[in-house]
Amino acid sequence: MSSIFSKIVAGDIPSYKVAESECFYAFLDINPLQKGHTLVIPKREVDSIFDLNEEEYAGLFLFAKQIATAIGKAFPCQKVGMAVLGLEVPHAHIHLVPMQDEKDMLFSRPKLKLTSEEFEASAAAIRAAL
Amino acid sequence: MSSIFSKIVAGDIPSYKVAESECFYAFLDINPLQKGHTLVIPKREVDSIFDLNEEEYAGLFLFAKQIATAIGKAFPCQKVGMAVLGLEVPHAHIHLVPMQDEKDMLFSRPKLKLTSEEFEASAAAIRAAL
Repeated sequence: MSSIFSKIVAGDIPSYKVAESECFYAFLDINPLQKGHTLVIPKREVDSIFDLNEEEYAGLFLFAKQIATAIGKAFPCQKVGMAVLGLEVPHAHIHLVPMQDEKDMLFSRPKLKLTSEEFEASAAAIRAAL
Repeated sequence: MSSIFSKIVAGDIPSYKVAESECFYAFLDINPLQKGHTLVIPKREVDSIFDLNEEEYAGLFLFAKQIATAIGKAFPCQKVGMAVLGLEVPHAHIHLVPMQDEKDMLFSRPKLKLTSEEFEASAAAIRAAL
């Protein structure tokens, strides 16, 4: 059974796409901690990020570096934080979150409720900064 | 002025060392969220992890992958979580934390108070699993 993220990559579930390469995909988290909160995933479905082979793993993090740099331009912040937790969706994913404060990365915080127009504008702003 | 982490790398401040390579260093966080909570850093002092060049950046994450795998063996857990926040110490660092639950990665939680014997035992357990 394919993961919800595999369905997003396949286009069976819509997403606010930020970027895509042959092996990787970046899209907005629809339960964001902050505006610009993005998920970066390998298209190949593996549960733990550490199960990726070295080439895929390094490639994924380098792809995430490009996205993080664009997020920092689109959403001026102190730093773009990065987190890999992965207990909820069994498809490896990196969270990228623009932070003004370390509290901005607390996953226990209530998530933002954004309109589809706000999501579209966020994704477009990050794409424009790539 | 060198960062507290550069002083740790130089040996001017003691640390519970987990592993070291030519360019990278891993040691226990002395304010751990969980037993086995480890910091992985580049020896070269840069503030943002995204300021590392591609080779250093990929190398750092590959080094962290080896450490994370050892942490998972030494401290059986659901997953080893990874976080890069970096607003407190201006020297890029990756947190690796064995998680039973995503709450285990909440940096707002009270930190564990461990004895030096417990820290030594944790570091030795991770080194033995490398």
